[in-house]
Amino acid sequence: MVSDDIPDIVISRLPVYLRALTRLLIEGENDITSGQLGQRLGISSAQIRKDLSHFGEFGKQGTGYRIKDLVEQLRRILKVDMEWEVALVGAGAIGHALAHYNGFRDRGFRISVIFDNDPAKIGTLVNGFEIQDEHRLAEIIQARKITLAMLAVPAEAAQVVADKLVAAGIKGILSYAPINIVVPENVYVQQIDPVVHLQRITYYI
Amino acid sequence: MVSDDIPDIVISRLPVYLRALTRLLIEGENDITSGQLGQRLGISSAQIRKDLSHFGEFGKQGTGYRIKDLVEQLRRILKVDMEWEVALVGAGAIGHALAHYNGFRDRGFRISVIFDNDPAKIGTLVNGFEIQDEHRLAEIIQARKITLAMLAVPAEAAQVVADKLVAAGIKGILSYAPINIVVPENVYVQQIDPVVHLQRITYYI
Repeated sequence: MVSDDIPDIVISRLPVYLRALTRLLIEGENDITSGQLGQRLGISSAQIRKDLSHFGEFGKQGTGYRIKDLVEQLRRILKVDMEWEVALVGAGAIGHALAHYNGFRDRGFRISVIFDNDPAKIGTLVNGFEIQDEHRLAEIIQARKITLAMLAVPAEAAQVVADKLVAAGIKGILSYAPINIVVPENVYVQQIDPVVHLQRITYYI
Repeated sequence: MVSDDIPDIVISRLPVYLRALTRLLIEGENDITSGQLGQRLGISSAQIRKDLSHFGEFGKQGTGYRIKDLVEQLRRILKVDMEWEVALVGAGAIGHALAHYNGFRDRGFRISVIFDNDPAKIGTLVNGFEIQDEHRLAEIIQARKITLAMLAVPAEAAQVVADKLVAAGIKGILSYAPINIVVPENVYVQQIDPVVHLQRITYYI
């Protein structure tokens, strides 16, 4: 059902659909048309229907989508019908914000370990987590079979830490370091850099 | 030279090129081929050449790009050959991380004012900034002619604050709130939500 040739741009929109639909569910809604969903998201209804059609038949002509079913399907497609443990590397300002972020819950992810290489930070608590020595990164990640990591270290350290994460078995990295990290083909990287996003805005202003 | 029909996906890659090229310049490099740049970024050289060709003729067959020139062109295209003042709304964990982020400098942006609606925070300092009362948002943004904002408020407050920002003259919003905000067509929104990025990773794992 999930074919390999679905464009990445389609995949990139699915989490946004899931987020909006989950919110609708919380608000007590049961059904929604692609047009209504599109209005909420600033995406055309045709685009939404086309995106979802890659994964089979959802919704009915006229009545639209049953939100609960579509949420379930999207969670399954994005593999967040389970909870992923995530390793966080870097307990600076961004790492702290991530450790305190309550938006992971019920969306498929849970930070389960935090690493830093600063002796002054190791052993201290962040939101109830004891910061672990980065030297124990491979040991802990392997023992817990963690496959996802968030990288919140300075640009200068990012590639070295990424290499360690990959060697430890990490298959996906969300990087906040403002530098491109190079990883093997079977490891998936997403980057968050506010400046990259701001520059994409200023182009259009 | 800059035509309106350049796909947004191309625009989204330009800041990544600019970031990598700026780093190469700092490392003392003068020239680079599209193949070398592609290797650094995990993007094909053909893609890079095609993306840049939208904006005119850069580089020479064989010798590649003069990095300094390409950086200048990209800064001009993305309109970061100037410094934009940015208003930050929300002095929670994410707002603090943004206020302390030193990656804005020399990349076109400077946070110049921080707002919050919490009486306990108003008047206190974050990285040298006095947190302003959110009630003064319109007044200050208009007086300083600020057109860019970063939104780091809870999901529940995001739309209301976004409406205030737009009314005050903001033309671009980088939102960290895990909800889709609706704005007029002439306002550009980019969203940063770690869960959306993580779900895009887990799809592929």
